[in-house]
Amino acid sequence: MTHRTYGVAVVGRAFMGRAHSNAWRNVAAFYPDGPRVRQHVLVGRDRTSLEASAEALGWQSVSTDYEAVLADPAVDVVDLCVPGHLHSSMAIAALEAGKHVLVEKPLANTVAEAQAMADAATAATERGVRAMVGFNYRRVPALAWARQLVADGRIGTVRQARVAYLQDWLVDDTAPMTWRLRKESAGSGALGDLASHAVDQVRALLGQEVLGVNGTVHTFVPRREGADGVEEVTVDDAAWATLQLDGGAVASLEVSRMATGRKNGLVIELYGSHGGLRFDLEALNELEVCLDGAASYSRTLVTEPEHPYLEAWWPPGHVLGWDHTFTSQAADFLRCLAEGRAPEPSFEDGLAVQQVLAAIERSAAASGATVDPKETR
Amino acid sequence: MTHRTYGVAVVGRAFMGRAHSNAWRNVAAFYPDGPRVRQHVLVGRDRTSLEASAEALGWQSVSTDYEAVLADPAVDVVDLCVPGHLHSSMAIAALEAGKHVLVEKPLANTVAEAQAMADAATAATERGVRAMVGFNYRRVPALAWARQLVADGRIGTVRQARVAYLQDWLVDDTAPMTWRLRKESAGSGALGDLASHAVDQVRALLGQEVLGVNGTVHTFVPRREGADGVEEVTVDDAAWATLQLDGGAVASLEVSRMATGRKNGLVIELYGSHGGLRFDLEALNELEVCLDGAASYSRTLVTEPEHPYLEAWWPPGHVLGWDHTFTSQAADFLRCLAEGRAPEPSFEDGLAVQQVLAAIERSAAASGATVDPKETR
Amino acid sequence: MTHRTYGVAVVGRAFMGRAHSNAWRNVAAFYPDGPRVRQHVLVGRDRTSLEASAEALGWQSVSTDYEAVLADPAVDVVDLCVPGHLHSSMAIAALEAGKHVLVEKPLANTVAEAQAMADAATAATERGVRAMVGFNYRRVPALAWARQLVADGRIGTVRQARVAYLQDWLVDDTAPMTWRLRKESAGSGALGDLASHAVDQVRALLGQEVLGVNGTVHTFVPRREGADGVEEVTVDDAAWATLQLDGGAVASLEVSRMATGRKNGLVIELYGSHGGLRFDLEALNELEVCLDGAASYSRTLVTEPEHPYLEAWWPPGHVLGWDHTFTSQAADFLRCLAEGRAPEPSFEDGLAVQQVLAAIERSAAASGATVDPKETR
Amino acid sequence: MTHRTYGVAVVGRAFMGRAHSNAWRNVAAFYPDGPRVRQHVLVGRDRTSLEASAEALGWQSVSTDYEAVLADPAVDVVDLCVPGHLHSSMAIAALEAGKHVLVEKPLANTVAEAQAMADAATAATERGVRAMVGFNYRRVPALAWARQLVADGRIGTVRQARVAYLQDWLVDDTAPMTWRLRKESAGSGALGDLASHAVDQVRALLGQEVLGVNGTVHTFVPRREGADGVEEVTVDDAAWATLQLDGGAVASLEVSRMATGRKNGLVIELYGSHGGLRFDLEALNELEVCLDGAASYSRTLVTEPEHPYLEAWWPPGHVLGWDHTFTSQAADFLRCLAEGRAPEPSFEDGLAVQQVLAAIERSAAASGATVDPKETR
Repeated sequence: MTHRTYGVAVVGRAFMGRAHSNAWRNVAAFYPDGPRVRQHVLVGRDRTSLEASAEALGWQSVSTDYEAVLADPAVDVVDLCVPGHLHSSMAIAALEAGKHVLVEKPLANTVAEAQAMADAATAATERGVRAMVGFNYRRVPALAWARQLVADGRIGTVRQARVAYLQDWLVDDTAPMTWRLRKESAGSGALGDLASHAVDQVRALLGQEVLGVNGTVHTFVPRREGADGVEEVTVDDAAWATLQLDGGAVASLEVSRMATGRKNGLVIELYGSHGGLRFDLEALNELEVCLDGAASYSRTLVTEPEHPYLEAWWPPGHVLGWDHTFTSQAADFLRCLAEGRAPEPSFEDGLAVQQVLAAIERSAAASGATVDPKETR
Repeated sequence: MTHRTYGVAVVGRAFMGRAHSNAWRNVAAFYPDGPRVRQHVLVGRDRTSLEASAEALGWQSVSTDYEAVLADPAVDVVDLCVPGHLHSSMAIAALEAGKHVLVEKPLANTVAEAQAMADAATAATERGVRAMVGFNYRRVPALAWARQLVADGRIGTVRQARVAYLQDWLVDDTAPMTWRLRKESAGSGALGDLASHAVDQVRALLGQEVLGVNGTVHTFVPRREGADGVEEVTVDDAAWATLQLDGGAVASLEVSRMATGRKNGLVIELYGSHGGLRFDLEALNELEVCLDGAASYSRTLVTEPEHPYLEAWWPPGHVLGWDHTFTSQAADFLRCLAEGRAPEPSFEDGLAVQQVLAAIERSAAASGATVDPKETR
Repeated sequence: MTHRTYGVAVVGRAFMGRAHSNAWRNVAAFYPDGPRVRQHVLVGRDRTSLEASAEALGWQSVSTDYEAVLADPAVDVVDLCVPGHLHSSMAIAALEAGKHVLVEKPLANTVAEAQAMADAATAATERGVRAMVGFNYRRVPALAWARQLVADGRIGTVRQARVAYLQDWLVDDTAPMTWRLRKESAGSGALGDLASHAVDQVRALLGQEVLGVNGTVHTFVPRREGADGVEEVTVDDAAWATLQLDGGAVASLEVSRMATGRKNGLVIELYGSHGGLRFDLEALNELEVCLDGAASYSRTLVTEPEHPYLEAWWPPGHVLGWDHTFTSQAADFLRCLAEGRAPEPSFEDGLAVQQVLAAIERSAAASGATVDPKETR
Repeated sequence: MTHRTYGVAVVGRAFMGRAHSNAWRNVAAFYPDGPRVRQHVLVGRDRTSLEASAEALGWQSVSTDYEAVLADPAVDVVDLCVPGHLHSSMAIAALEAGKHVLVEKPLANTVAEAQAMADAATAATERGVRAMVGFNYRRVPALAWARQLVADGRIGTVRQARVAYLQDWLVDDTAPMTWRLRKESAGSGALGDLASHAVDQVRALLGQEVLGVNGTVHTFVPRREGADGVEEVTVDDAAWATLQLDGGAVASLEVSRMATGRKNGLVIELYGSHGGLRFDLEALNELEVCLDGAASYSRTLVTEPEHPYLEAWWPPGHVLGWDHTFTSQAADFLRCLAEGRAPEPSFEDGLAVQQVLAAIERSAAASGATVDPKETR
């Protein structure tokens, strides 16, 4: 048996570059029936640090010349792990160069950029070139299983979704100013970073689109001291929203970087007419399920062979970690490429998320009144 | 040692009448240093059922004549456990008759009624007559302790409060129409019933007033079948709000009667600059505390002698039940009467809660835009 | 409708006397269809403190003369809340005087005393006089439900029971010497106090008798300072046992007063051929259930009307406290008296528990080798 | 900077071979400052399946000739992932051939084999050849941190350890007979498989040796049907023990393959004079800690940079999985090789565990009486 092999270029060697490298290095070991990967080139700006990273992470070469990478026929896939304001131009260039593209979330910093990317992806599809946005939590087995359970009607019609993403890394008001707290570089604060995951999950789990948004944003520590003295924080520390969905559900959203003692608390509760579900990313191998009209919630360790993705991993009770989601994401992406199918979440999905985030900001600026995420500003 | 004894009249023999009777019957046993109670008269409409209740619940007599009760000099305290639309007239009459008054929450069905009651209470105070509204959860030891911890600065400045009150008794869309689902009798749905507790706790725990409200309300099952056929449900099944507080905090609120599998889930999370707190009424003897800059949350069984109210009860680890809150509430009320102090929560507190609930409805009617709870409609 | 009324004498006014008084005072209010109680007399040694207790706890009179109480025809029930070494003589005297007897657990300090009590109860039964031992945790709704579930085969054949009762009030090695730490007054340490509950639950839940016992006991702090200087601790701080049951199950037991941070942790896990159950007394309204071959455990709030005892109490989600078990125990006892049925747990049950506790000590003294609890020493 | 590179041979391609391969493939990426690995050869019996595994798992070659592997100078490390009865001869041969050896736990099936291995390891050490046994849970960050906390005196003197390892894969009494249920091939049942981890943790966490053992073993389903008809199960389904430790602590042990609904429940509770700890492998990123005399337990997500191993992995709140323990184990082993230090746990540690397991069986055969694990049979 032979396996199709894809040459991959990862752009970026920081946190996300490392997580994605890990995925490409391991995908064949866990998904041996799928395509193979050649870790062709790690791309960045500083050759010395790139070389050190490449050696440790398993890359065959490094490059500081993105255009050359796009021109290299040995590169089949471009995987962008760079800051959000670079996504649009780099992704569009790669698609136009005929490379399949994986972009780390959020898709872009603005709706306009996201729209341009979605348009480019549509055009590329006609040439057999694929694009995907990396909302990796879609590959958390518990969340993938939750999505199946909802789709199969196991909790009936979903009425309420209660979603929070709570972290605490800005609680200390003497924490220094960084580029992440400036609107021009970061786009937004907790909204783009945390609410993007939350909104993607609401759309994915419910299979419903957002029709109306009421939003509030707040910056609890409005000034922080940085290298250049005290500076204004121009992004949100926390945000709240109520989303009206086209299937009749209402979702509440709360995201924060000031939630003391919460490290990575993406908490999702779904309440349906015949059941409910509860998930917390800090316990990512568990799903609490109330199915088929049951009276209470079962804590289920999502490590059984019949659970999504688990066949690839370990026996029951042998839990997965956060980074395994990237390996499964890579496997799904590669399989779509090999089979000529559209991978998901698509750039259209990424755009829809961006529209909701922008609508939260617009509503907040309009005293919280309802905003349609599809309307032009 | 002698103890002042108060003659008590409870009005109502249903769920709340029973819970309050239990409190009056037990208060001396648990708070032996406080005043004594004579369970003088149980008041209602049907003499036969009243007599059966009175015999079992420990009342010395029954009455169907509220005016006679108010005229009876043996009655010192009137405790109203009747539906909300009767609170205002009955409480004002009792205060005017010189009786101390305890009213079960919420204070009233409308701001106007609540305002009239607060005015009557102010007038009565000058005559030494006292009034209190029965937000019994203020006497949950874990919540009373939480309030102390916040007041003592143990979690620093509170920035975010995340509060939900989730029940599930309306999940079944074939559940029948009742008076609780009609606006004219019930005033509102989850708002008055559940959000009133939640708003009272936000105000009490944070010691802050609500300046601005964004609200959303929704009825998931708009029609239900009753004795007279299919009828429109005219109250909310669920409500959401964001509250801006005068100390700079933001509180999110979500209440629902459609939260499948949640029986009595009043969940309160506070996030401060130096700690946090977490509470769930379904585990009412526990408080998760992150204090004084600690890195994580300690699950604390709030049953130690130094915890509020616990000296009156059992040794460590011997947990309290829901109904014990009423006994402690009665003890607090009696001690205030004996000492000539104003009991709390006052009718002013009850009015402030009512104003926030009304503001949520007004905001919801105005597309979610910000509303000032103090503004005249 | 008239109700049979029983005159009750409680002996003892300390912790247990107070808990039992509470039960007699409240039983009619929660179980209105059952018999009525007249709180006739509170019995003890010091008249002044008795009178203060009686006034607060609702007793009509006090007495320091136990023989007079036994001679009083107004007393139908004698409820013994005195130290264990007094149980045997006082209970036997009461039974011989024709009084129904309730004895707080454990039944006695020695097997010989327990045997004499069981014999006396057998003799009394023939005269229509009833006896019960107060293992109040049999009236925890979650545990009563657990027993039903096992009896109904919902977890199949029980194979393993894993039971611990963990407290921490002796962790501090400077805690002072007391009578509870001397064998002559207390009989034993954690064994009699904690393991008695644990063994009673194993027998009740499984419906099986103990055939063989392997035991270990240990005193971690062998000397403590008391009023008379440093003294040897002559009872166990902790004990461990493995019990072979006649239905083929094996139960493990661990009890301790040195389990730092555990306040009242009676934790019971049952593993059967088709399911399992998990309970923790610190969360006494909850039972985790894995029934009928299910794959995982549901956390169930045991507050639904169909759960044992709950019809008498509050609506779903309104949790009970530790002391409610005594009220339900009193109700069960009274109903048995009125209906001429044998209440349970019987003195025979109390004796069986005592035999297992003694067997643990004998096994521990014999290097841990297996001991038959029924064998004569 | 150059890194010493070690050629590795893994023997075995099943569950453990796959887990260990994963570790060797990833160690440089997560521990870039340590030595490098060349995945030289995957060793087994069937060339075809070996080649398929090797391609997916990243091995450069395969071999079915273990002697040739031992003779190959490109092999520095031999990693044995074969059944327990093969450990002794293969490990001793490798050590004699001058290869560093890692052996998957348990060290061997019998004390005699383990003793021979420990002797061989001692002899090899003099030639600079290293040996380690793969109790991978020593590299669970929460357990490594727990060990530090105990060693640093943060919970005072440990008095009680309460350890269980509960799985449920044999609950179904129609599950078929396998080699794992025959004494001649498996050595023992839950004892060798599960109790070996538990005993290793007790020794590691407490830093104490086992002086005395009381044990019980049981086979709940004594006959199962296999390919050759119904056969007797000759290993234990569950085992219980009480261990006396040389520092004065007492540890209780319970292991089972019949614990319905428990998938991988290695639960460890430590109770000390000034605190306690609680761990459950099903939530392996968490440790509940009660430190320095605190009153209650803090649930701590063990994902902070200051926690053991975490510097190598992801930011706070980004949880690790079961398999990451093998990567950290490989990193520790390699670093010891490079620095000429003895890796731990040593074969002596593995022998000590084996002696305790054997003592449990001997005690069980002697009616549960105390056995010294060091005594010759």
